[in-house]
Amino acid sequence: MVAQPLIHEYSLMVDDELKRVVSGRALPLYYMMEHHLGWGTADDPAPSPKLRPLGALCVASCGALGGDAAAALPLAASIELVQNFCDIHDDIQSGRVARDGRDTVWWKWGPAQAINAGDGMHALARLALLGLRDIGFESDAVFDAVRLLDEASLATCEGRFADLEAQERLDMTSDAYLSMAAAKTGSLWAGAMEFGALAAGADGQARKQLAEAGAKLGAALQIGQDTRHLLDALGGSAPPSEDFMNKKKMYPVVLAFEMASPSQRRRLGDYYFKRVLEPSDLRGLSAMVEETGALDRAERAAKSLMDDALGALRIGAGALGDTDEIENVIRQICKVG
Amino acid sequence: MVAQPLIHEYSLMVDDELKRVVSGRALPLYYMMEHHLGWGTADDPAPSPKLRPLGALCVASCGALGGDAAAALPLAASIELVQNFCDIHDDIQSGRVARDGRDTVWWKWGPAQAINAGDGMHALARLALLGLRDIGFESDAVFDAVRLLDEASLATCEGRFADLEAQERLDMTSDAYLSMAAAKTGSLWAGAMEFGALAAGADGQARKQLAEAGAKLGAALQIGQDTRHLLDALGGSAPPSEDFMNKKKMYPVVLAFEMASPSQRRRLGDYYFKRVLEPSDLRGLSAMVEETGALDRAERAAKSLMDDALGALRIGAGALGDTDEIENVIRQICKVG
Repeated sequence: MVAQPLIHEYSLMVDDELKRVVSGRALPLYYMMEHHLGWGTADDPAPSPKLRPLGALCVASCGALGGDAAAALPLAASIELVQNFCDIHDDIQSGRVARDGRDTVWWKWGPAQAINAGDGMHALARLALLGLRDIGFESDAVFDAVRLLDEASLATCEGRFADLEAQERLDMTSDAYLSMAAAKTGSLWAGAMEFGALAAGADGQARKQLAEAGAKLGAALQIGQDTRHLLDALGGSAPPSEDFMNKKKMYPVVLAFEMASPSQRRRLGDYYFKRVLEPSDLRGLSAMVEETGALDRAERAAKSLMDDALGALRIGAGALGDTDEIENVIRQICKVG
Repeated sequence: MVAQPLIHEYSLMVDDELKRVVSGRALPLYYMMEHHLGWGTADDPAPSPKLRPLGALCVASCGALGGDAAAALPLAASIELVQNFCDIHDDIQSGRVARDGRDTVWWKWGPAQAINAGDGMHALARLALLGLRDIGFESDAVFDAVRLLDEASLATCEGRFADLEAQERLDMTSDAYLSMAAAKTGSLWAGAMEFGALAAGADGQARKQLAEAGAKLGAALQIGQDTRHLLDALGGSAPPSEDFMNKKKMYPVVLAFEMASPSQRRRLGDYYFKRVLEPSDLRGLSAMVEETGALDRAERAAKSLMDDALGALRIGAGALGDTDEIENVIRQICKVG
């Protein structure tokens, strides 16, 4: 089987589980959740089906370690719901008006109701986990899962805090960026992969290694996304994102400040002394970042983190199963991510 | 012992537990949480100590049913954290700039960071519950608590949704108001009292009765607050709240629309056809509401709900213990609430 169908197949399974959790509750709050999750109604037709990369990787990790995919589904759904509740709130925080071809929740229903939709989805993420007891999981494993999910939620809030705080600052170091990315993005990917190992009944060591693989993967994806955005801008094809306009610090920009000569640093600073960036700034800034060598270095950093992720995966899962399937899914995620 | 010290004594115990949960994590996100929870630092001195009515009632319920107060503390802390995370988000939604003598979180750190602070506190609410395992609770009881907390969080989100949606409408019925209040406020008070019973190891029937008592109490408190606000305005002593200015539908106003003659209804409608209410509208509106007889009826409804609450409490706890202590705490809550 080629790699392409795998992420789709698993995403569909996760989507069914999400529908079971969310659509079972016929209350108005859920219309907003269903809209955000990309589902359609007669009045609000669905765009193309949404992939569930975190959930799919959780299912793949479970399968590769000899577990039954069905056992991973409550875990996959819960981590997807955490990611999606964060996205609903992040769209408000960033002023993002569209996502995946649809109006964002706050744009359609206002920020106050979007806060409620995210809060409700956060509670549902946790309720989704309780389904593990019905399919025969031991209490200790369910408590592990509950703790892991809430620690991941908390870490991602911490990362979102650091990310926002850096918007108005020029002194974010590359180490501070990596801590932020590990918390904001890495914690969810670490959670997804550790959840897969937990669902397969893997031992503590394997779980730890898979969590490490996920953390590295998350950081690699975040840096990859930042880098691609600037590269596309250089090629003339990237419209500036809200994150760029809000002065969120992208990894290549953070590196550029560190690597710049004094005169380059002054010119970079000129962009960020503006109250908001303008769309026309993206191309010039990208060129400056490239001039410092930071785009190259960011690409190498993403590649090295990805190698670390695959290394940790092979240590963690290699003794227990075949890592090919997980690696296939990871490659798919990198393509769509 | 007089009643006054009891709510204070229990609030202090709950506060210590909250400090254990929140302050154990020395990360920037927690500064905002500590500020909201009313704790002080050198730069940000504490106002007078905050009562923890939900937590105190949880502890009192546990004690009255023969349980050890210490066993109730993780549960009391978790329900307080849910209430407080909702308040952080509600302050953004309502544009409230001060609470308990302090700037609100969004007013001090901006709405984006306040969303993060609330989200993090929501995750902490659940982590607080896991402390139950360390003090010897059976797994089944902990799972019950986890489910109960998340169902209460979800219900309160639903209630906040309905409350916001009614802002721009004139057709909220008194039944719809009571459903909204049961979800938004009742679910947390029901959770607090059921948590007390759960901590004491009470049986399902007692738990159910205490939950019912809490639900009625919550609705009574919400109606009481609405009514007092309009009565104070008539007496010339209430500054208009953000909820009033945002056209949130207070119970006496909802009743007034139902009880009004056609000409009274038209005059009431004139207020709510404005885009926002002005501070000077509160007194005239309150007089209109009184004229329809709705203020009296709202007071009677609150009293009747309170009687129902005490009735359910006596059925639920009467066979197991002495309800005086719980009733004392409830009376204190009514005074401060």
